[in-house]
Amino acid sequence: MKIDRLVVIGVGLIGGSVARALRRARWVEHITGVGRGRENLDRARELGIIDDWTHDVGEAVRTADMVLIAVPMGAYASVFAAMADNISSHVPVTDAGSTKQHALREARRWLPYPERFVPAHPIAGTERSGAEASFAELFEDRWCILTPEADTDPHARNVVEAMWRATGSRVIHMDAAEHDDCLAAVSHLPHVAAYALVNAVCKSGGADPFRFAAGGFRDFTRIASSSPEMWRDIVLANRDAVLRKLDAFRDELASIAHAIETGDAEGLAQMFAQAKHARDAWLETHGGRL
Amino acid sequence: MKIDRLVVIGVGLIGGSVARALRRARWVEHITGVGRGRENLDRARELGIIDDWTHDVGEAVRTADMVLIAVPMGAYASVFAAMADNISSHVPVTDAGSTKQHALREARRWLPYPERFVPAHPIAGTERSGAEASFAELFEDRWCILTPEADTDPHARNVVEAMWRATGSRVIHMDAAEHDDCLAAVSHLPHVAAYALVNAVCKSGGADPFRFAAGGFRDFTRIASSSPEMWRDIVLANRDAVLRKLDAFRDELASIAHAIETGDAEGLAQMFAQAKHARDAWLETHGGRL
Repeated sequence: MKIDRLVVIGVGLIGGSVARALRRARWVEHITGVGRGRENLDRARELGIIDDWTHDVGEAVRTADMVLIAVPMGAYASVFAAMADNISSHVPVTDAGSTKQHALREARRWLPYPERFVPAHPIAGTERSGAEASFAELFEDRWCILTPEADTDPHARNVVEAMWRATGSRVIHMDAAEHDDCLAAVSHLPHVAAYALVNAVCKSGGADPFRFAAGGFRDFTRIASSSPEMWRDIVLANRDAVLRKLDAFRDELASIAHAIETGDAEGLAQMFAQAKHARDAWLETHGGRL
Repeated sequence: MKIDRLVVIGVGLIGGSVARALRRARWVEHITGVGRGRENLDRARELGIIDDWTHDVGEAVRTADMVLIAVPMGAYASVFAAMADNISSHVPVTDAGSTKQHALREARRWLPYPERFVPAHPIAGTERSGAEASFAELFEDRWCILTPEADTDPHARNVVEAMWRATGSRVIHMDAAEHDDCLAAVSHLPHVAAYALVNAVCKSGGADPFRFAAGGFRDFTRIASSSPEMWRDIVLANRDAVLRKLDAFRDELASIAHAIETGDAEGLAQMFAQAKHARDAWLETHGGRL
């Protein structure tokens, strides 16, 4: 399978890395980038990630054979709206957003052929952003979760699945609601917790509260260096699931605080050991591919 | 300066690494290890970390020129008690525990010459434990915080400071209460949060809730693989400060949950950006030595 003209809306870490991977796989002939920042688009062209670019979503998708949306969740409505009057009925559309029910809702609201939209979420990334940070190997051996619906067009589904496979991803299908719940736990919650922890330490006083922070702190807070706008959009788009996980997390913290307060050494050791056991088991099973 | 006979009580990651570093620096002639686990002590001797070992704290310290305590905080009382009747008045004692007010309290309660006890906390470690995991470079260019009191013996203080410098540490002096508050924020709180988060995800349902966890999750939860007993002891020994930081953290989480609930995009972006800024600035200033 080969695509003549791919349009990548949002040429950042994810969009840029998909473009690089598909080029390397010779899966695509021509790539048009769409974005707002001229500097980033020029740089992407210099680096050979895209062949040309435009600021205009409608113009770009008019002659597209396939469209990848790789913008923050907060921009989905305006991107779909701009595509609506310009996209042909046969063109498969996919995305790379972190929350899938929101993507489906917006597609149904705006697109004339929402059954050609096949939502995808590649479980890959770094805390860096922009085309400059992209690389062709980002998706290799990583999960890419597709969440098609019952009425999704089978051809679009095949093309989109082939595209993600061509990036090196391990493609898996899942229900959109299940995806959002699962990712809220293992991805969205840790990001929120990292941001909250850094802010708590900031307010904790002293001239330089971070002075004695060490390797554990560095790793724990690495994801707090992620894009604030992107994560604002994600937690708002996945509001209900994130709030559920936040509640569960705050309950766990309350249990630990209570055990410390009452000097319940046994209870603390049990809670900590349970976590260590689960984390070690996870690393044993899944850590090898990270 | 050189010590003839150093006694290391607790030959784990920290005790073993101090022994290795001092040997490499030719700062010590003979090292006796004290511990409970025979297998670990035999292995430490095989590896050349210690010259001999005993299970008996009292016997070991009787002929010591210097003593390093590197056991979990929960064992301090019994170790000091066993030292009390056996240690000579001139022998400097130091430790490597993560909470300093607790160490000072126990030393005053048990030791006949508590003014020879110079509390220390080397800010270094990995999530691994045992003599096998120790290495001579662990302390190189890391902070080691000493928290002597007004009545601490100057000679003991000099010897202890020289010992930590010989491991490669950057020695700094600090008030014990200030130390405990500061470390509760940047070290004890992240550990508690990592344990709590893993437990929250475990209970979050699904056959394999961790299946799609990726690099962010791995780094965020790395410290949840730390020793449960050690961290139980630390949070109990530093009870008040840890509870204060936990409260502050739970407040931050509540603020974020409220912003998500009310759809306050601006507030979320602000909180996340503040955290990113602080974390990036910290990494810029201090990250190089990690």
